[in-house]
Amino acid sequence: MSEIITLAHGSGGKLTHQLIQGIFQKHFRNDWLLEGGDSAVLETLPGQMAFTTDSYVIHPLFFKGGNIGKLAICGTVNDLAVCGAIPRYISCGWIIEEGFPLGELEEIAESMASTAQEAGVSIVTGDTKVVPRGCADKLFLNTSGVGFIPEGLQLSTALIRPGDRVIVTGTIGDHGTAILIEREQLRVETELASDCAPLNGMLELVTASMSGAVRLMRDPTRGGVATTLNEFTEGQGFGIRLEESTLPVKGEVSGLCGMLGMDPLYIANEGKAILVVDGAQADRVMELLRSHPFGRDAAVIGEVVADHPGKVYMRTLAGGNRIIDVLVGDQLPRIC
Amino acid sequence: MSEIITLAHGSGGKLTHQLIQGIFQKHFRNDWLLEGGDSAVLETLPGQMAFTTDSYVIHPLFFKGGNIGKLAICGTVNDLAVCGAIPRYISCGWIIEEGFPLGELEEIAESMASTAQEAGVSIVTGDTKVVPRGCADKLFLNTSGVGFIPEGLQLSTALIRPGDRVIVTGTIGDHGTAILIEREQLRVETELASDCAPLNGMLELVTASMSGAVRLMRDPTRGGVATTLNEFTEGQGFGIRLEESTLPVKGEVSGLCGMLGMDPLYIANEGKAILVVDGAQADRVMELLRSHPFGRDAAVIGEVVADHPGKVYMRTLAGGNRIIDVLVGDQLPRIC
Repeated sequence: MSEIITLAHGSGGKLTHQLIQGIFQKHFRNDWLLEGGDSAVLETLPGQMAFTTDSYVIHPLFFKGGNIGKLAICGTVNDLAVCGAIPRYISCGWIIEEGFPLGELEEIAESMASTAQEAGVSIVTGDTKVVPRGCADKLFLNTSGVGFIPEGLQLSTALIRPGDRVIVTGTIGDHGTAILIEREQLRVETELASDCAPLNGMLELVTASMSGAVRLMRDPTRGGVATTLNEFTEGQGFGIRLEESTLPVKGEVSGLCGMLGMDPLYIANEGKAILVVDGAQADRVMELLRSHPFGRDAAVIGEVVADHPGKVYMRTLAGGNRIIDVLVGDQLPRIC
Repeated sequence: MSEIITLAHGSGGKLTHQLIQGIFQKHFRNDWLLEGGDSAVLETLPGQMAFTTDSYVIHPLFFKGGNIGKLAICGTVNDLAVCGAIPRYISCGWIIEEGFPLGELEEIAESMASTAQEAGVSIVTGDTKVVPRGCADKLFLNTSGVGFIPEGLQLSTALIRPGDRVIVTGTIGDHGTAILIEREQLRVETELASDCAPLNGMLELVTASMSGAVRLMRDPTRGGVATTLNEFTEGQGFGIRLEESTLPVKGEVSGLCGMLGMDPLYIANEGKAILVVDGAQADRVMELLRSHPFGRDAAVIGEVVADHPGKVYMRTLAGGNRIIDVLVGDQLPRIC
């Protein structure tokens, strides 16, 4: 196999087959993929399924805490998991720029395979396109995913009521800040890494034993916690009040954001979920979350309130109230 | 809404929401998409499902017979249909270059919506990324799809035996040749258009009433009929003999291919299927196919044979035999 990707790797012919066998089938090894059909033929489970898609255009491809491959599995697994689904099947579409190093492609595929294993999902079908030099920036990935929703589990904005608590499963802004440091090659001494992680195991701890306590879950990626919370309240008869003092933010993240005039509430996370839970059961949910490695820093950050319907606001450290609107413009393009 | 796509349209914030509401939800209108969750929550059917993905990087985006949006629906619907599945749910991932005209985006979305309607599928979930100018060539799309396989339908290479007939559902090479004319702005007076079409309706005519007659189906896209047939025979105990005299090729396609030294057998199709069927039932299958508008030019082009195991060969017009190997290199990059 040559050392770089050529247009012929995307032709559907001999080199495409070599690429599929030599890298994708080797690392993603499962019977569905080996079948090599136009679609994977899979068993369904009765009831409801979740179906999601995300394209990944992150720059740079490799960063502290992961790479585009790990991200593409985590992001899609998390989109399924926050809907209450048990993630099961993943598809992978590659758009590769001619000249991309095969070694890096394999490293990315390896990450996808090990993250998929960690999350308990199988990469069952895929597609590879190669575009001429200059027509894409190195590599874009798409992963779509299918998961099955346990019977009886219901999550909906309609279940939310005043008194419910808002939980975030860990520190906020880590992913976006880590990417920014990497991209701008800021000379910052830091151990900060992307939080990129598959959250399904942790969330299943909660939904399996306390499904009635959970109203809604969401992963605050692009647009950050602020945008996700606004999606909860938009057009609704309730508001959300955050307590600034309870927001879990790493010192490095708040320091860098302060320097750059950015707000961690708007910065993308890739290994965090927000849960709205029954206020009476919030303590027990917190215990379960904190028992999981990805939930050690979980915190109750706010409460659903009857005042300010449709709005998110924050009681600040100074004691005032500040409206937290959705993101306008884009702080960090190509963050995922 | 501004007239072009800006980076903020991909931020996950206000402009992303406007884009989703103003274009995607407007055209793809269905309850799942309106839900606006991280995943669509859908009913499953018991038994088996097919799951597939394809990214589309075609250049140019608009061509005679369709555009990238129509293609993205047809390609994914067809990948499900040739597996015997009834296509049902489609996801759509957009990677858009900053500066892309919103009017063209809407035109593409309209095509997707009307093709989805024609095929009986719903676009239930999506994702939008915007990359800075120069980081992608205008627009790439990914569609993934889920379909459900009727109980008892079995399609497999293992069912193929000598005496089976090979059918193609219409003229070959139309898509690739039409794109080539468009791209190179060849000054050819022609009505030739891409054959881009959703084939599920036509194929269900056959599988619904004659499922036992069909061994295997595949859509000969990249790499063309030659590559698809080689996928059938690779490593198998049978060969396939084509009859050159029976290949349905439009005069314009054979003419242009002759001029350019290309072979229609290797040129991509986007509205054709190949079926391997029981020889004794081939006539009836042909009748069903020809009763459908997309199958009017269906033809039996060859036979499964015991000699030349693992190989595809063609009895040529001149009376000789020629081995038809898989595509090496790439005749036409970015054909789909």
